[in-house]
Amino acid sequence: MNTLLLDCGSGGRASQRLIGDVFLRHFDNPVLRTMDDAASLTLPHGRLAMSTDGYTVTPLFFPGGDIGSLAIHGTVNDVSMLGARPLWLTCAFILEEGLDLDILERVAASMGRAARRAGVQIVSGDTKVVPRGMCDKLFVTTTGIGERLAEPAPSGSRARPGDAILISGAMGDHGLAVLGQRDSLSFLSGIESDSAPLNGLVEALMLEVGDIHVLRDPTRGGLATTLNEIAGQSGVACLIEQEAIPIHPAVAAGCDVLGLDPLYLANEGKLICILPEAKADAALRVLRSLPYGEEAARIGTVQAPEAPFKPGQVVLQTAIGGRRLLAMAEGAQLPRIC
Amino acid sequence: MNTLLLDCGSGGRASQRLIGDVFLRHFDNPVLRTMDDAASLTLPHGRLAMSTDGYTVTPLFFPGGDIGSLAIHGTVNDVSMLGARPLWLTCAFILEEGLDLDILERVAASMGRAARRAGVQIVSGDTKVVPRGMCDKLFVTTTGIGERLAEPAPSGSRARPGDAILISGAMGDHGLAVLGQRDSLSFLSGIESDSAPLNGLVEALMLEVGDIHVLRDPTRGGLATTLNEIAGQSGVACLIEQEAIPIHPAVAAGCDVLGLDPLYLANEGKLICILPEAKADAALRVLRSLPYGEEAARIGTVQAPEAPFKPGQVVLQTAIGGRRLLAMAEGAQLPRIC
Repeated sequence: MNTLLLDCGSGGRASQRLIGDVFLRHFDNPVLRTMDDAASLTLPHGRLAMSTDGYTVTPLFFPGGDIGSLAIHGTVNDVSMLGARPLWLTCAFILEEGLDLDILERVAASMGRAARRAGVQIVSGDTKVVPRGMCDKLFVTTTGIGERLAEPAPSGSRARPGDAILISGAMGDHGLAVLGQRDSLSFLSGIESDSAPLNGLVEALMLEVGDIHVLRDPTRGGLATTLNEIAGQSGVACLIEQEAIPIHPAVAAGCDVLGLDPLYLANEGKLICILPEAKADAALRVLRSLPYGEEAARIGTVQAPEAPFKPGQVVLQTAIGGRRLLAMAEGAQLPRIC
Repeated sequence: MNTLLLDCGSGGRASQRLIGDVFLRHFDNPVLRTMDDAASLTLPHGRLAMSTDGYTVTPLFFPGGDIGSLAIHGTVNDVSMLGARPLWLTCAFILEEGLDLDILERVAASMGRAARRAGVQIVSGDTKVVPRGMCDKLFVTTTGIGERLAEPAPSGSRARPGDAILISGAMGDHGLAVLGQRDSLSFLSGIESDSAPLNGLVEALMLEVGDIHVLRDPTRGGLATTLNEIAGQSGVACLIEQEAIPIHPAVAAGCDVLGLDPLYLANEGKLICILPEAKADAALRVLRSLPYGEEAARIGTVQAPEAPFKPGQVVLQTAIGGRRLLAMAEGAQLPRIC
């Protein structure tokens, strides 16, 4: 087995070989090839979106993805949520001495593929190697920038009473897929992560529908936590219909067995879109016509922060007609899912 | 002792408290305060520089700095080396469950201070918490963007025969300061890291001197490795005079004892500037007039890649008149110094 040496993070020849043999090969593009410490980039204008995320998921490979594709999709999606077209990513690896180089190669190949599919370039990077036992195999932090497509940008603070709340597909797949792989739960083996780039959906919503108030991807903490954040930032309430929320049968069944709530599970290829009621049908049509949006649904309506609602509340209308509060999660149902 | 819980990385309420109590307090600015997943930024034009670096230094605190100030300075400097004015940084923390929250607080405070002094804003971030034993206390990855100040940007590939080679100060302090702290070597206790933001020097060089061919900060691998990279990228040779290279006496003495070569030790507040001979004196005057440039020196000249030199070579003219090749380091003299 070919393993990673401490020297591969030294900045010397061993580092250069690693960069040339693995990263340049899979990420190749003219900007990265300059091999300067920073990337020189040119936008048509100066209106940017920028976001960063660290990825520590375990296991590194899971049904539907791996830490590499996740690190591309996650940051592409976070940049997109500002109504922006992601263009460039940087990646910073923290690697454990002794890591199987085949694993690094597979992760880098997956990142390269995911970046090409999402239409973004990896333009700069960094590699640190820490001694055995000082990190768990491989962590990667990606940072992305993109150009904002319209002003004002969508923001968690722009939900307005009467706005429609849409989601682009089914909830909970990613969290359960990672859990199933990590704990070898065979009854979850059919569930795949939904990890996917959402920039295509966002660009269509921004340019074909317009007037998008909020875009947010319900990752850590799931739909319930993300809606709580939005309700809090906007000073409104959200009323959600349980029956309208798409959940794949295998996910619903798995959650029943494990006592998990799919509304709090992480998604990595879904977005929440909040926009004026009058635009809701058009937005749903656009989403459903595109890859990763086929199962889009309207799940609720933004409510004024007055009785029976309070500002910041997320209320679930249950299938049998009752209402209950979807509180914000205190902690995580599952650690290290992204 | 108040320690970090896994839940603080969950995306739920515990995460929000950590962000509010620690990060927002120390990094506060209007962009970060929006609390969206991405930062919305506006440049006067679209000519950018972008760079990322992961920081895994141990110990977290050392004479002259800590992982927080280092993470700001390092990325500010990498962006600057493209002849750019750094404007915005993101930071992504990977934290170990059980970390003393006072340590996190001190690191965040140091990052906030360093960012304010360097004139940059931390506009977005991410926090992951991994279970005990899965990382070594605290890693942080910072990514920076800035506006390029002139075209063409300085690049490692633009050194030309006859160009002067300057450095902005003494070599080796950072590497030796971290080593001394880590291994409790009391004879090194007077040595402080040179960790510092170099954007002031770069802006003065770009705007007051101009025609800067190469800017590079000799971090991992030190002066020797960085000059080798430049010589390789530009297809030239570098001839360096040993006596002209400033090295603090305590660093020289410490290196003698430990058998280390200061030309291969990391610096975190120094730059290499390569520019036309005719501009060398003006550049030296500018550097010496500014903070962090007082000890600037001209150390050599770029040579054509012909006999007695070969392309990619770095040759040291020793004090007694001999010449020897400064090879690129294979690995690191010291691991985890940044």
